[in-house]
This record gives sequence, C-alpha cells and structure tokens, in this order.
Amino acid sequence: MLVRAFLRLNVALLLLAVSTFAQTKVTHPLDALTTDEYWTVHDILHASEHWSDKTLVASLLLHEPDKKDVLAWKPGDAIRREADVILESEGKTIEGRVDITGHKLESWKEVAGVQAPITLTELDTMNDVVKKDPRVIAALKTRGVVNLASVRCDMIPLTFTIFPEQANHRVGYGNCTDGHGVYHSWGRAVEGLYVVVDMTEEKILNVIDHGPLPMPKGDMNFEQAEALPREGTKPLVVTQPLGPSYVIDHGEILWQNWRFRFRLDARVGPVINLVRYQDGDRLRSVMYEGSLSEMYVPYMDPDLGWSSRAFLDAGEFLLGGLIKPVGPGDCPAHAEYFSGIVPSDKGTPVLEKQLACMFEHNTDGPAWRHFEDGLTSVRPSRELVLRTSAVAGNYDYLLDWIFQQDGTIRVAVGATGIVETKAVKETTASHAAHEGALEHGTMVAPNLVAVNHDHYFSYRLDLDVDGTENSFMVDRLVPETISGQGRKSIWAAQSSTAKNEKDGILDIDLRKPGMWHFVNPTRLGPTGYPSGYEIMPGPTAVSFVSSSDPAQQKGAFSEHQMWVTPYNPDELYAAGVYVTRNKEIDGLPAWTQANRSIENKDIVGWYTLGFHHVVRLEDWPIMPVLWHDFLIRPANFFDKNPVLTLPNQP
Amino acid sequence: MLVRAFLRLNVALLLLAVSTFAQTKVTHPLDALTTDEYWTVHDILHASEHWSDKTLVASLLLHEPDKKDVLAWKPGDAIRREADVILESEGKTIEGRVDITGHKLESWKEVAGVQAPITLTELDTMNDVVKKDPRVIAALKTRGVVNLASVRCDMIPLTFTIFPEQANHRVGYGNCTDGHGVYHSWGRAVEGLYVVVDMTEEKILNVIDHGPLPMPKGDMNFEQAEALPREGTKPLVVTQPLGPSYVIDHGEILWQNWRFRFRLDARVGPVINLVRYQDGDRLRSVMYEGSLSEMYVPYMDPDLGWSSRAFLDAGEFLLGGLIKPVGPGDCPAHAEYFSGIVPSDKGTPVLEKQLACMFEHNTDGPAWRHFEDGLTSVRPSRELVLRTSAVAGNYDYLLDWIFQQDGTIRVAVGATGIVETKAVKETTASHAAHEGALEHGTMVAPNLVAVNHDHYFSYRLDLDVDGTENSFMVDRLVPETISGQGRKSIWAAQSSTAKNEKDGILDIDLRKPGMWHFVNPTRLGPTGYPSGYEIMPGPTAVSFVSSSDPAQQKGAFSEHQMWVTPYNPDELYAAGVYVTRNKEIDGLPAWTQANRSIENKDIVGWYTLGFHHVVRLEDWPIMPVLWHDFLIRPANFFDKNPVLTLPNQP
Repeated sequence: MLVRAFLRLNVALLLLAVSTFAQTKVTHPLDALTTDEYWTVHDILHASEHWSDKTLVASLLLHEPDKKDVLAWKPGDAIRREADVILESEGKTIEGRVDITGHKLESWKEVAGVQAPITLTELDTMNDVVKKDPRVIAALKTRGVVNLASVRCDMIPLTFTIFPEQANHRVGYGNCTDGHGVYHSWGRAVEGLYVVVDMTEEKILNVIDHGPLPMPKGDMNFEQAEALPREGTKPLVVTQPLGPSYVIDHGEILWQNWRFRFRLDARVGPVINLVRYQDGDRLRSVMYEGSLSEMYVPYMDPDLGWSSRAFLDAGEFLLGGLIKPVGPGDCPAHAEYFSGIVPSDKGTPVLEKQLACMFEHNTDGPAWRHFEDGLTSVRPSRELVLRTSAVAGNYDYLLDWIFQQDGTIRVAVGATGIVETKAVKETTASHAAHEGALEHGTMVAPNLVAVNHDHYFSYRLDLDVDGTENSFMVDRLVPETISGQGRKSIWAAQSSTAKNEKDGILDIDLRKPGMWHFVNPTRLGPTGYPSGYEIMPGPTAVSFVSSSDPAQQKGAFSEHQMWVTPYNPDELYAAGVYVTRNKEIDGLPAWTQANRSIENKDIVGWYTLGFHHVVRLEDWPIMPVLWHDFLIRPANFFDKNPVLTLPNQP
Repeated sequence: MLVRAFLRLNVALLLLAVSTFAQTKVTHPLDALTTDEYWTVHDILHASEHWSDKTLVASLLLHEPDKKDVLAWKPGDAIRREADVILESEGKTIEGRVDITGHKLESWKEVAGVQAPITLTELDTMNDVVKKDPRVIAALKTRGVVNLASVRCDMIPLTFTIFPEQANHRVGYGNCTDGHGVYHSWGRAVEGLYVVVDMTEEKILNVIDHGPLPMPKGDMNFEQAEALPREGTKPLVVTQPLGPSYVIDHGEILWQNWRFRFRLDARVGPVINLVRYQDGDRLRSVMYEGSLSEMYVPYMDPDLGWSSRAFLDAGEFLLGGLIKPVGPGDCPAHAEYFSGIVPSDKGTPVLEKQLACMFEHNTDGPAWRHFEDGLTSVRPSRELVLRTSAVAGNYDYLLDWIFQQDGTIRVAVGATGIVETKAVKETTASHAAHEGALEHGTMVAPNLVAVNHDHYFSYRLDLDVDGTENSFMVDRLVPETISGQGRKSIWAAQSSTAKNEKDGILDIDLRKPGMWHFVNPTRLGPTGYPSGYEIMPGPTAVSFVSSSDPAQQKGAFSEHQMWVTPYNPDELYAAGVYVTRNKEIDGLPAWTQANRSIENKDIVGWYTLGFHHVVRLEDWPIMPVLWHDFLIRPANFFDKNPVLTLPNQP
C-alpha cells in the first residue's frame, strides 16, 4: 500500500464492537474494546511516568484472555480485560500491556532493533518537512510544479534494509504526488524524485533526483465516468420481507446451525471466534479463531523507487487499513451494517459506521441434487456472508467469511481498487519488444506503466475440531502399480500424521496432490475415521523469487501454502509483530525452525492465498473485482451429509 | 457413469432448440435440429438400402456448416443443413452424413476397430440375457436374491482393452443391483459377481463370481430424509418484477453488451456459439464456439470390477447424459427454462421440457470499488447464468456458462449426486490401519466403501478474438536477479508466441507460473498490446497415474491443463469420436503429434478442469455440491475497464 489516500480520512486505529451500534458493555471475554475501556487505556497511558507529549499510539489492540479461560467462561463469570499497546516515543519502540480490569499498567518495555508501525502524525509531519526542503521545492519546480497546495509527499517505512541509517533510525522513503486538476492523485506521482528521511530526527537524509519524467495525463476518473446504462436492464430485487434469518445474541451470531462471534481488529480486520456447529444435540467446536494475519505485496521493478515497495500492510501500516467502511453496492440492500469505536493515534475514541456488513446470499443454486427415474431431488441453498473491506491506499480488498449450510466456511478475497503506476517516457509499448523481453509492467496508458506485483494473504486458522487437541493429517495421493487384466496404474490415498512443524510446511504441486486435514484423533466417526476439517485451496500462487531477497525474507511465509504450529498466544502474525526490523527473519519461518511437536496438541494452521498480478488494460483506471478463495470444510466431521435434512424450501 | 439410473428415463438422444418451446423453424445455420429435420433424417435413414430392423441410432448430431459459411451468413441467406449419425448395426459401426436440405444420404461408411456408443436397446437386451442365465440366477440365489423383478444387470462398454474378445466384438462388462426395499439402487450393488458379455452375439462370455459379500443396509434415502427446517429461517426472495434483462432474438441472446447463441447437443451438452461483445460501436468477436468436449472419470481400486471403470461419459454413453432436466431448486424462481426435441435410439422425436435454464444472478457484490477520502465509489454487479445438468448415472454435474458484465466468462462445474460404492466385508475402517496404508476408498457406512476416483472435463474453446486468425501467447513469470541497493530478486513477465502445437501443451506449476493468452496479433490496442482473451485456471487437478495405463491412454487429455490446436471441424472431442476402440491413443494426444503450426491461424484452446475425489462421510448418501471453475477473461481486449461506465444502479 501507499498511504497518501487514507491520510485524508481522519481515522486511525480501529477497534470495533459487534453490533449495529458500538457496543457499550462487555458481555464476553472476546468482545472488542468498548468506549469506556478505550478511555481507561488512554487515561492509564497518559498518567504513566513513561508517557510524553511526543508519544504516539502505533497500535492498540485487545489482548485476548487465555484460551483456557475463554473456553471455561460462562455468562455471569468475571471477565478480565487487557489491552496491548505499541508506542512510538521519540525513536523508541515501546510495548505495553494495560490491565483494564485492574486499572493499571501491567508491563512496559522498550524493544530494540524494531520499528513500531507508522502513524498518521509522522506522515503528516514528514510531509511538511519534505515540502519545505529547498531541494525538493527546486526539483518540483523543474517539473513545472510550483503550487504545493495539491502536492503530498508520503515518506513510508522501509520494511527491509536499504540504507545503513535504518540500523538505528526510523527511516522513511517515498515520493510526492500532484493532485492538480484531478480529485485523486493515484497515477499522478512525481516520478524520478525520491526522498529518504529520518522520521525521528524529522530531517531529510537524501533527495534522489533522476530527472523529470512526463506526468501522465490520461483520464483516471473512475467515479465520474459517464454512466452508460446497459440496454434493457431491469430490476433484479433481493428482499427479506421478514428480516434476516440470523440472530445476534450478546455478540454471538446464530444462523443455520452455525454459531460464531466476531470482532473487528485494527491490525488484521475481522477476527472470527468460537465457531461451532449445532449437530443434533451436540454443539461442536470447529474453530477457536480465524483471521487474516498478514499481507505481503512486493513490487517487481528493478528501480529502487519500486523495488523498495514490498508492503506488509497489516503489520507495517496498521492504520486501520484492514478495516475500512463498506456500503451499499459493496453489500446488498438487505445487508446489516456494523459500526464500531475507532481511536486516533493519540488514543481518543471515534465512532465509525459501516465497518462490516452481514447478509444472507441466495446462491440461486442447490445444496445438493440428483436426477433419477425422471424425477429431480434438489434442495436450494443460501449462505451467510460477513464482508469487510481493507483499503491499502490504492488497493481495495473485499474480505469475506462465508458460512455455508453444509458446514463449509469459504474465505474469499476480492481484489479491486487502483493499481500502482509508474510514469515513463514512452507512450506505447512496442509489441515487437514485448516478445521475449523481460517486462516489469504493463503500459495502461501513454507514459503510464502499471508495475507487476504479487499479493499474498496469510490466514491464521486456529481450528479446534471437537476440542483443542488436534493433529494435522496429510492424505497424499500416491501412484500405485497394479497387475492383472487391464489397468496398470491407479493412485491410492496414504495418510500420515505430521509429528513436528516441518512436516506441516506444505506446497501445492498438482503432480503430488495431497489433502490437509485437521483431525481430532480421539473422536472417531461411525466407521472409524477421526473427526476432521480440511483446508481446501482454491487458485493460489507461491512466491518464487530468491529466498535471499531481503523483501522476500520479510514476507517469507509466502513461500509455502500451508504451515502448522503449536498454539502460542504470542504467535499471531505470519511475519512477526514488527515487520520493520533489523532481524530479517521472523514469524512463521523463524518459529518453525524449532520444529516443535504438533501431534495431538492445540495446533494452528496458516494458509497462504496468493496471486501474481500482471496488469491488464482492463484493470485501469480501476480494477474489476478479481476473487480468490479457499474452503475450510468438514472432512469426516459429520456422520453423513449435513444438508440431507434441508427442507425443500430453504 | 453407470447406466442403470437413466435407463428408467425413456429418453435418449437430445437435440434441442434454443427457445422456451421447441424451435420449429431454422433461423440460423447453428440452430439445433428441428422436429421436421429430425423426421427427415429418420426417413432418409429408414429408406436407405443399408438400414435394417436391427440398426440402432447411437448418435445423431447437427453437422455444423463450414465456419466460413456461418460467419458469412446473413438473415435471408439459404441455410444448408446436415446431420451426422453413428449407427450400430449387428456389430458394425457405421458413420453416415445426411443432407437434410438436399433430402439425401450423403455418405455412409463402416468404420473398423471402433465401437459406437452404447444404446438403451442394447442395455435392455443384455439385462434380459444376463438375468436368464442359470449361472447368474444361481449366483444371485447364493446371495439370497431370488426375486429378480427388482434386479437390474447393466453390461456397459469397456473403453480400454481387458479381454481379448474386444478386438473384434462389442464386449460389455458389468454387474447387477438389487433395488428390493429401496427406491433407488445406488449403493445396492451385488458385489463380487461380474458378467462379461458379447453384445453383438447377445451372449454371455464369462461369469466371474468371487463369492458373496454382504449387501450394505445403511440408509441411502436422500429424498425422503426427514426435513428439519433450520430455526429462524426466513424468506430470501429474488424477483424480477419487470422480467429478465436479456432478449432472445431468433435464438440469439442479448444481455449487457454480450451476444451469443447456444444449442443443446446430445453428446456434449450446451454448445455456445458466436460469442460477441458490443464495445461502443464495434460488435467484437470473442469466441466462435465453446463446449465441454469430453469427460473422464477413472476409478482407483485394483479389483477388476472397479479398475475397469474409467468412464468417458460424453463419447461412451451419449445417451443424453450430458443434458438432463433441471428444475426449481437447480435454478431460482425467476429463471427461464428451455425445452427441446429429443429422439429415441430408433430415431423418433420426443419433446422434453426444462433441459436448460437461464437467469440473472445478483452477486450481492460490486463490479469494482474504491474507498478514498472518506467516500466509497462502487458499482453493484449482476451476471447471466446459463445452467444445464449432466447426469452420468449416479453423478450429477451442474454445468454453468456465466457471463459477467466485465467481459469475463466464468465456466463452472458443480459436482453432486451419488458417489459410487463397493460392498465390503468390514463394517469399520481401522484408524490404525489407515495411517500409512494405501487406501482405495472411504468407508461411508458399514460394509460400504466409496471408491476413490478422478473427474476431468475437457472444454473445447474455439476463441476467435477480433477475428479467426489468432496466436497463443504465453506470459511466463521468470525470476530475475537485480543488483544495487536492497532487493536481490524480482520476477519479470516474458511473453512468447507458440509456434506449433507442442508449444501449446501446458501444465500448471505454481513455481513456474504463466498466463495463457489468445491474441489477435494484428489488432493492437492504444499502447501496442495485441487484443487478447486469457484462460485463467481455477483449482484443478492433473492425472498423474502412469501414461502407460490403458485407461489413462484413453483419457490422456487429462495429463495437461492446456492444449492448443489449429481449427479443424473434425476435431471436436478431446478423446476422439470413438472412445471405445482398439487404437489406444486418439484425440488431443494423437492430433498434436503432428505438431502443426498454431501461429496467426484459426486456433482452438482446450482446457482441462479436474479434481481428485477421496470421498468424505459428508458426501454420503448424496454429495453436497462442490464447485470448480475457470475464467475466460479479456486481457488487453478492451482499452480500459469495460465496467467503468456501469451506472450506480445496475
């Protein structure tokens, strides 16, 4: 992401309540922080001897209670509430924990060698510093830019080491845009002029000027494009005259045998909790917690101004980018919206509306069907969608958690928004040059190249299938030679239980297929199979650039589709808590070096959903939504088809 | 597929008109055959000196006019109509072409070394023969089956060679089911008793009895399962009060800038033709023809009764399996249904209803969106779905062609229906034995194992991007080492145009990603890229058993995801016209041996969609729909986002 866009939204860290109104009372240990709690944290921090006027709140998140305590908790029991904060204080990164219930600062420590996520205050400050620099003013003038009112210069953190100053300083790197004549400045970057800054010292380290390049002039106006109604289009109306079929009971959603909770988290967006399925008399556990854990978006152009762009949006920016408003058009007319409490980076709470929507979707197709003897047996289906939006500056992602009637959860990412572009001298891409040449982008308009890049999403899936103690079982399909009449070769399924973490690091290879099951080895079904849930990949991509690349080392989780770790409440983010740091490897690739046991234990699965993006002309000036998804689906969890008993009318 | 199910539907070959009523007049060269035309073919065949009372119509399909003539055709021009027939006549396979317009038999030839697809008459005849055989009667008695009224014995063709008699005879192989006490006999096979028959001689070649196995008694009753309405379920109503937004004009569908035709074909189901997109003033060609071309479903159990099951459902059965009725629940309430004319295997026409449905689907999500400066720009989207159903005996497939507003066609296959099961002695699958063992199926109920298998679908996609002469361009993403500050490694896109067929045979490998473009090298866009459409795979599978396996040789198209051939009107089916034949290799793997030029020519793409199926308990007694899909999407076809101009209200 780049940050110039969301700076204009005066909203920062988001911590939201599950309710159409911001929740005011804590009714469950996993509820989002309330207004009152937010003020309690604020007051405790400000009263602390460590607090100074220059201290910035770079992160403020609910610290979840012990899983054991949450699982044992019953309505009426006391709830211990805590918050984790990361503060940026004059170049120091501080981690603190606030005991909200006990109204005290529990811990406070400076962390060396890492940088806190960037804050709006820093970006605004550095914008001012850069725009006042005579070298920058002169460089802009060379390019014909003299009115600086429409210029914005965003100095963004560098996740991986480019400049030696990064060892001990909070270094930013970025460029300027000129919004003159347009209402958004994507595609209006002042190319060839880059600035390196020290954010702590609030000074410029270097101005890099490769000389002026033309400012692309093409029409980027997506909102005000002429609406051309498509001939004959008639209303297609979805209504729920009697209201939705789900119930929200003290923050728990009940729908079609499903029960789950969610809260909205400033760093990772929606956190789904305590997902259970009512199977006859049994309320059965499926997943304790599921959420996006990190994103990684590296750009693929050798110019330093572009190769430096390798965003880890969740951990690096954490400005509420992963949870931005949705509205009509994002969600259907019958959707319900959820608001929440959001804090500024000074810690004051702000009420925000429409940060998630929930709705039932008519699939217009069946849950199952069979045609036999001239008769069709069929059961129509619907699903429940929880949708949020992440806006990483230019890019928009729709993040869906879709609950199906058959016990499947479909997790989908829709990519849309504006692709990042680079200004170039040329106005056409020669077709002849294209054949065989190594291309770093697509010329979407004269002087404007949309740069090649990847998107990787790490989902943290703390599956608890019928309880916390689970094993990870891989069903590999292996060729088998057979003899006798006819066939010579078939395949067979061969199960093996992963003993340690390294057995759980898996890649998708179409010629070596396997299925990934989280099973409860002590809960056997009627014919002896352990109760299980399967992660079933959809289309995805793996990062195949060199592992020695420093950007790739930060986003190294993207080298594998599946990771499995023992549950550890401190391991929440696939690239580590601090993505801007001196140490190159953290998160999944670091933790799994210990090769801990993952057999018959509380374990966590991490699935990487990815895609490469070579931009099409069709993706400009705004990209049609491209969806990717994966399934979390029952695999010998139920004794038989769980939608067998669906009525003919859904 | 097994055929016992659809025998009870007294319907065979299907040739359908695009209309809510069967079309009675030919208005376009690609229209389905009409009732009158069908009778013309019937009368010409019966009047021929070659026809005998024992002749069976194994296939009767529209013979498409030359592509050149179709493209040149204008309303009012004469239309030459022809039909292709395959006849089974006392052990001989005959290919004929009927000139309907000229009212004459154009050609008639016997084809050696191949077998015509199976007919209902043969299946019924052999059922009678087998049920009268004393060895079979005795073997059934041993198993306690004495009342043969509920017994059905289906002798199905053997695609690949198992018995030496196959060299010159029409050999069938199969077993019996006993429907006593149930209303469908899937899961009620008389296991361990197999019969080999000579269908031409109408005699039994061998009875193979491995001894009785228990008849599984579990509940397989999916239709009459107790309906348990899910608590709180409320109506979710989709309506189109002013009717659909599409228009059908002389068999052409016009919707949201799209135009296309379709007919329903007995062998391959829906055939989509002349797909074009209205782009401003230009009506631009996208695809001349798209259809499923073959299916391949090999089972993975070493027992001969199961390893012999490797179905090529389109070419082998051709009893209208790929086009069976759909109805409410398969399609939403506002869907329109299409009926058609279907013939029996003696050639008499029958009117059939509801063989396809079409409807607009509200995606409940946007075509594109962006959030900026506190404001969301968003355009809601809808899509047009053409849905048919293929029923291969036990299995049901929903076959969707989905037209999106943004120029993308999504092709989706939903798998549902009943998995094939084998009776076994055991009542539980030991978990301990499961670990590490080579498993051939899943015990879905006591004594009942659902056998592992694969599904492969070959789609024939005759893309004509802005005209017939196209090239196939692969954009490979290749690692690139870079020097300088920071990054060490990125990737670059490298295009190459396929010269010959072998350059167009491609596999999906996540570590060697590539994009597959059909381009018109003479139509360059504003910045110089050739106009193109891309085949974008969804989740899929490749057949990885040995290429020397005789079943695999018949379904060898499944070894690659992409094939590209020069257009040849005789190359319609990925595994060849006759899948039951002596020659092992035909279709794509045989044709492409010639390694013909595919550059700047009329070319055809063949995409394989596949999945492995290790059955879950959840898939029994009927399988929840599992969807797979792929996209045919514009890639530098439009100058910019084609849905930019969508109005705020769709």
